[in-house]
Amino acid sequence: MRRYKAIIAYDGTDFSGFQIQDNGRTVQEELERVLTRLSSGQAIKIHGSGRTDSGVHALGQVVHFDLATARDPEKLRFALDTQSPDDINVLAVEAVDDTFHSRFNPHNKRYQYQLTTSRAPNPLTRRTSFHVPKLVALDEMIAAADLLVGTHDFTGFTASGATVEDKVRTITAVTIIKTSEDELSLSFSGNGFLYKQIRNMVGTLIKVGLGKWPASRISEIIAAQNRDLAGPTAPAHGLCLMEVNYRDDRETT
Amino acid sequence: MRRYKAIIAYDGTDFSGFQIQDNGRTVQEELERVLTRLSSGQAIKIHGSGRTDSGVHALGQVVHFDLATARDPEKLRFALDTQSPDDINVLAVEAVDDTFHSRFNPHNKRYQYQLTTSRAPNPLTRRTSFHVPKLVALDEMIAAADLLVGTHDFTGFTASGATVEDKVRTITAVTIIKTSEDELSLSFSGNGFLYKQIRNMVGTLIKVGLGKWPASRISEIIAAQNRDLAGPTAPAHGLCLMEVNYRDDRETT
Repeated sequence: MRRYKAIIAYDGTDFSGFQIQDNGRTVQEELERVLTRLSSGQAIKIHGSGRTDSGVHALGQVVHFDLATARDPEKLRFALDTQSPDDINVLAVEAVDDTFHSRFNPHNKRYQYQLTTSRAPNPLTRRTSFHVPKLVALDEMIAAADLLVGTHDFTGFTASGATVEDKVRTITAVTIIKTSEDELSLSFSGNGFLYKQIRNMVGTLIKVGLGKWPASRISEIIAAQNRDLAGPTAPAHGLCLMEVNYRDDRETT
Repeated sequence: MRRYKAIIAYDGTDFSGFQIQDNGRTVQEELERVLTRLSSGQAIKIHGSGRTDSGVHALGQVVHFDLATARDPEKLRFALDTQSPDDINVLAVEAVDDTFHSRFNPHNKRYQYQLTTSRAPNPLTRRTSFHVPKLVALDEMIAAADLLVGTHDFTGFTASGATVEDKVRTITAVTIIKTSEDELSLSFSGNGFLYKQIRNMVGTLIKVGLGKWPASRISEIIAAQNRDLAGPTAPAHGLCLMEVNYRDDRETT
């Protein structure tokens, strides 16, 4: 048995999320189908660093899986990449110690949310960027982003139905970068995020950017632990999982 | 009668090009449908600065059209933008003198061709960027690009079936910019381009970038006026019409 770690990218538009489910096409299902075919029909399971929701993209999702026999990592990557559908790419494959687990090994994740701020939408980025014209209060938005950084109870930013008990998470960085005249990139790094947390934080930052709320609203939502105070959930198509960084690199052989 | 100039953008993926034809969905047809509806059913024709081929995108195509009555340009832009399909956007509308003609008024055009050079393709840019790994000879590619600049007979770079007689055109600039670790942007400015000229020039520049041909191949192709010496036509999906600049701005009222 040999364990492999892979970095994968996908266009979330036509997926019902990463994780296998009864209805709808998923990234996990598509990748397992290719791996199973490459393993002469022996069923292979993959384990992701976490789920991504329906419509959310990834350029740096990490998965691991076990094969019965060792393979050359680059040949395996090429076979997986070329045999998977057009909206999935396999960027890297490496052999890892069989104690490595994509989800349970401690890691940080970075997500990016793209906003298009021009008067009219851009037809070439409409699948990967949320169109929000009139974001006039950029400085206030940056001040609000700073208030998200730190270890907080993020109950106010998670979906009301979320079942996880401990809602304390650490956000290590939130950066807002104007990547072009008409584009803003919001980057969120942390040791884990609650269900819909990033999209709810983005929805709130947009309210601030539109000049409707002051930056201090962030602190109020964190303190009150009340989802009703936060902004609407920003749509999935603007969100992308950029990277998963494992704290301990010893898993790599 | 009032004439309007509009700047439009489209995702060419699902269009059989800009110009109306018997079979296939076109940008012109979709825009004329919206304009006709906005004019209480009176048929409106639009005139583009030129065609774009099937699959080619635009972020700065220019069209003009005449309406029976004057309208507020921004209200007209908003109505056109929101009523046109998702893959067309209307970026700007202005009233112009009725001597203005999007195609016949002297202008320069700028096109951009996007290349993705990473080992695996990027699923989020696969509709707008051509994947070419192993572009190792970037300096040679830049030297080749410089040889395209100037006034030349571009017979060697146009489709063999092209019917235009005069194949002399002036290219004012070709720039190759590394926009990120894995992306190259090729920009072409000039006073007009022949059928498939840019995609044939790109196909040739790629051969140079792959280290298969020296930069001097460009001069040979221009001198020989022989299409067989140039590289393959690069695919449509990497190409985008970025801007149309009219030399004389007096047409704007």
